[in-house]
Amino acid sequence: METLKIFCPATIANVSCGFDVLGLALDAVGDEMVVRKSAKKGISITKLEGQNLPTETHLNVAGVAGMALLEQSDYQGGFEIEIYKKIKAGSGIGSSAASSAGAVWAMNELLGKPFTTAKLVEFAMEGERLASGVAHADNVAPALFGGFTLVRSYHPLDIVEIPFPSELFATVIHPQIEVKTADSRKILKTSIRLQDGIKQWGNVGGLIAGLFLEDYALIGRSLHDHIVEPIRSILIPGFDDIKSGALSAGALGSGISGSGPSIFALSQGEETAQNVGETMKKIYQDIGVDYDVHVSKINREGIKILD
Amino acid sequence: METLKIFCPATIANVSCGFDVLGLALDAVGDEMVVRKSAKKGISITKLEGQNLPTETHLNVAGVAGMALLEQSDYQGGFEIEIYKKIKAGSGIGSSAASSAGAVWAMNELLGKPFTTAKLVEFAMEGERLASGVAHADNVAPALFGGFTLVRSYHPLDIVEIPFPSELFATVIHPQIEVKTADSRKILKTSIRLQDGIKQWGNVGGLIAGLFLEDYALIGRSLHDHIVEPIRSILIPGFDDIKSGALSAGALGSGISGSGPSIFALSQGEETAQNVGETMKKIYQDIGVDYDVHVSKINREGIKILD
Repeated sequence: METLKIFCPATIANVSCGFDVLGLALDAVGDEMVVRKSAKKGISITKLEGQNLPTETHLNVAGVAGMALLEQSDYQGGFEIEIYKKIKAGSGIGSSAASSAGAVWAMNELLGKPFTTAKLVEFAMEGERLASGVAHADNVAPALFGGFTLVRSYHPLDIVEIPFPSELFATVIHPQIEVKTADSRKILKTSIRLQDGIKQWGNVGGLIAGLFLEDYALIGRSLHDHIVEPIRSILIPGFDDIKSGALSAGALGSGISGSGPSIFALSQGEETAQNVGETMKKIYQDIGVDYDVHVSKINREGIKILD
Repeated sequence: METLKIFCPATIANVSCGFDVLGLALDAVGDEMVVRKSAKKGISITKLEGQNLPTETHLNVAGVAGMALLEQSDYQGGFEIEIYKKIKAGSGIGSSAASSAGAVWAMNELLGKPFTTAKLVEFAMEGERLASGVAHADNVAPALFGGFTLVRSYHPLDIVEIPFPSELFATVIHPQIEVKTADSRKILKTSIRLQDGIKQWGNVGGLIAGLFLEDYALIGRSLHDHIVEPIRSILIPGFDDIKSGALSAGALGSGISGSGPSIFALSQGEETAQNVGETMKKIYQDIGVDYDVHVSKINREGIKILD
């Protein structure tokens, strides 16, 4: 096998209460990549369509993540990578993570799987470091493992796959403004109130339990963020209206996707998730904000081989 | 049925990462109570053995919790309560919670169960408010529900029962010094670093997942407290030695039980839990601290009727 064409899912990080630790993979939106072995050492980004992003290896997240893998591999050749971006950069649904994760996943397949998925997360995190200045794992982990993932710890890296009920659907609306993850991190405070922390870890515990128990109501009750959302939501047009609209339309919960500006909602059943999407659309139409909407199952497999 | 004799379990609150939200019930240590219907309105503490505690209704946690129940009941009579304390007050294993929870649980049984267990938690919390100034639920919830409980939220109160693997055992050592919960709360800071919060909710998620997955190693990796333990452990003689001794003896994890001074460890299997207890004892013998040690299964039932 010399070439792979893959689907790299978009991902929702944080999932309200789980800032920097929780994430989930989507099925209905993601990039495509073609990764090909080459005799020439190193990584070449030979094509990049759909977004205006750098193709120099050391400036491209797929290049940087791929180089992190190559450094620990005894493979003497290199790889050519074509990236077909469907996920908009800066949308808050893991655009950089999809490219970073896709590159290292495909390279590992083509090399005969010398690395574990957990190790691939570490390589992909180097792409995240380039994109945002912080090597966070809450997008690359669900992209690589699929489903819901918990980053229990960063040092050492400890990723836990969390089962989830089959009727759980995500709706994501992306207002067409760009919020850079790096900027969105800067506005966070470095300290939080202990009382807010207690609420947050109560909700993380409740969300994890709700996912295991397939208890949709508990999942909904746990989808609150007392720490980051009150600050970051200021950067997102119409956030409060979209969130309350989603809840009125039947969503279990709603919050900021990753560092925003996308807003996500989780619902029980596809029909509700579609209704939530329609409600969100109307709100942005009324206030005159351009948007994309995605309604998606949770993706169980992570990155997938195409054709 | 006019009289009930019950066993009220000791409990471990916080369980390292879950400050104010997690708790578990013990089987091998607890109080006994006799609760009896009486024609006279209100609550009378007619006997209190084993500890030097007030018996005036409004100064006794069982009295206050019981009155909270009576206020919401249409029962026209009252109750007499005898309390046989086996749990030392101020030990950090839920002494006040056992009395508060036991009183309202037995009263509810004798009245034909008009209240849900969740409602009983609310009544029992009034006893906790008397004992410590804060109506916390992380001891009374496991005492009433049994097993592991998560207080997902206080407002509204939302208790989640968490399943756990059958080979999980607790070891608790109580150094014979008293730390009042109220004092132990005073030394906490009202704000924490966001970075420590992220570690904490990662570990809460990991612990809940580990309990569901019956993954002892994950349970162990999650038993860390980056927020409260570094401060409160200063009040506990030999804390670092006891904790590292417990881990060396094979415990999955170890930390402060509730607000201390008791130190707990969780282990896979009774034999390891016993070895952990022996190791803890030796350390306190060497430094000349008097102690009690308890080794216990996790109690699945909560409060139990005796004979």
